[in-house]
Amino acid sequence: MDSTAPKITNQRSIALTSVEQWEDRAISRVQDYLAVEEPLEIRIGEIPLAVTMRTPGHDLELAAGFLFTEGIVADASELRDIQPIPAPSSGNAISADLENGFDPGKLQRNFFSASSCGICGKQAIEAIRVRGVQPLSSGFHVDSGMLCSLPEMLTQSQAVFGRTGGLHAAALFSASGEMLVLREDIGRHNAVDKVVGWALQQKRLPLNQHVLMVSGRGGFEIVQKTIVAGIPVLASVSAPSSLAVQLAREMGLTLVGFLRGKRFVVYSGSQRIKNCG
Amino acid sequence: MDSTAPKITNQRSIALTSVEQWEDRAISRVQDYLAVEEPLEIRIGEIPLAVTMRTPGHDLELAAGFLFTEGIVADASELRDIQPIPAPSSGNAISADLENGFDPGKLQRNFFSASSCGICGKQAIEAIRVRGVQPLSSGFHVDSGMLCSLPEMLTQSQAVFGRTGGLHAAALFSASGEMLVLREDIGRHNAVDKVVGWALQQKRLPLNQHVLMVSGRGGFEIVQKTIVAGIPVLASVSAPSSLAVQLAREMGLTLVGFLRGKRFVVYSGSQRIKNCG
Repeated sequence: MDSTAPKITNQRSIALTSVEQWEDRAISRVQDYLAVEEPLEIRIGEIPLAVTMRTPGHDLELAAGFLFTEGIVADASELRDIQPIPAPSSGNAISADLENGFDPGKLQRNFFSASSCGICGKQAIEAIRVRGVQPLSSGFHVDSGMLCSLPEMLTQSQAVFGRTGGLHAAALFSASGEMLVLREDIGRHNAVDKVVGWALQQKRLPLNQHVLMVSGRGGFEIVQKTIVAGIPVLASVSAPSSLAVQLAREMGLTLVGFLRGKRFVVYSGSQRIKNCG
Repeated sequence: MDSTAPKITNQRSIALTSVEQWEDRAISRVQDYLAVEEPLEIRIGEIPLAVTMRTPGHDLELAAGFLFTEGIVADASELRDIQPIPAPSSGNAISADLENGFDPGKLQRNFFSASSCGICGKQAIEAIRVRGVQPLSSGFHVDSGMLCSLPEMLTQSQAVFGRTGGLHAAALFSASGEMLVLREDIGRHNAVDKVVGWALQQKRLPLNQHVLMVSGRGGFEIVQKTIVAGIPVLASVSAPSSLAVQLAREMGLTLVGFLRGKRFVVYSGSQRIKNCG
């Protein structure tokens, strides 16, 4: 261990440390903000379920959202209690108490589907279908102008991002473009789980009258979590993957990418987007 | 540059689909390229080890690199054979044959350390240290001007990225800035594993006279894989996390972030960077 290394002062979701800034061969020593990354262990009672590398903050929401989007609990009533495990866990462990107990065999099946343990994309999609997700709302519409306003709102609200440049965001909007909640994390999937966990704890699921906006790319995992939460419209500032588009099309999700300025690309479900003047 | 690097014509890594492009309320239907995402199952003989969502291409390198960076094999001699599993796996399954057989108990211990199953960051770092990684080369230096030339080389070589906007890249450079290999993937960690797997198969490990450059952020997992491969310098175009910086400092890795134009930030190990005129 290098004892002369600059200290990292950890303020839960952001940390401050001394770094060297090089610019055109001139070197200056400055203080820099870092996004905090720490492991979080999620347990069912005493049984270790998963460890995710996350940015501390809204940990109970993250754990609740994870349990829901990975199919461990089907609704808020199945989650009897969820609490941080006291010291010496350093605040990095959560334990959930489930209404119907917990069958570790179910865990393996769930994780096999969650981690797409089929050997082709079609099986990965089929695994989500057999979990019994609800059809997405067909009566929900958004205005194209409203969609274009989302990235600006996301950026303005990303207080932490402005400091570290290192955090992903996920935010939930109403059809009229009101931001209901924004969560940040070093992992995009964690930011989505925090949003869904917030909705679970507020008994707002399914989110069938809402739009989810995420920073960065929209991969298979993000589309999966969006669909499980019942959200009919997912928008991102960057590109989705082939399997994300395939899953969105099969499940009837409206998938918007490259949402920048007055432009965007619709990969699936354009019938939910209205082109108002 | 490795002549087996993906060509722009590689149709396994990119897919073409019809999308709607909306611009200032005008809608046009265009063909768009997508980065392919498909699950890859890695087995030891018949035992399923892991499934990763990846972009097809260089799958043997990905599997070999994964086995090495996750501590399942310590060098090329331990990997007796590695082959795709024939139909009906759709080309999405790889089987490895190990020289010393395989102890599933070791797997669990390894994955506990790999997935940072401690409940705080210090334990996650300690878990890597006890795996016995080698000290990084202290006699290796790079010129600051060479570092600044890397992002441009990475971008120019990212043939697939140019089409889809959806792929991460990892590239290996010599001290003089020659690009030895570039690999792309929807997952940044997979791109790094493909590079390390290439080096393993070429019997070039440890990569103690090399620089690794990655697109996007440098999190804990990327720093871990870099250190296990013996690479003394890691550079990225974006921000590292707190735990990535902590791990880099404790292991003596030179960690460079925000490498853009003539600027960069040094988080750790600046003694390896020379400021030549």
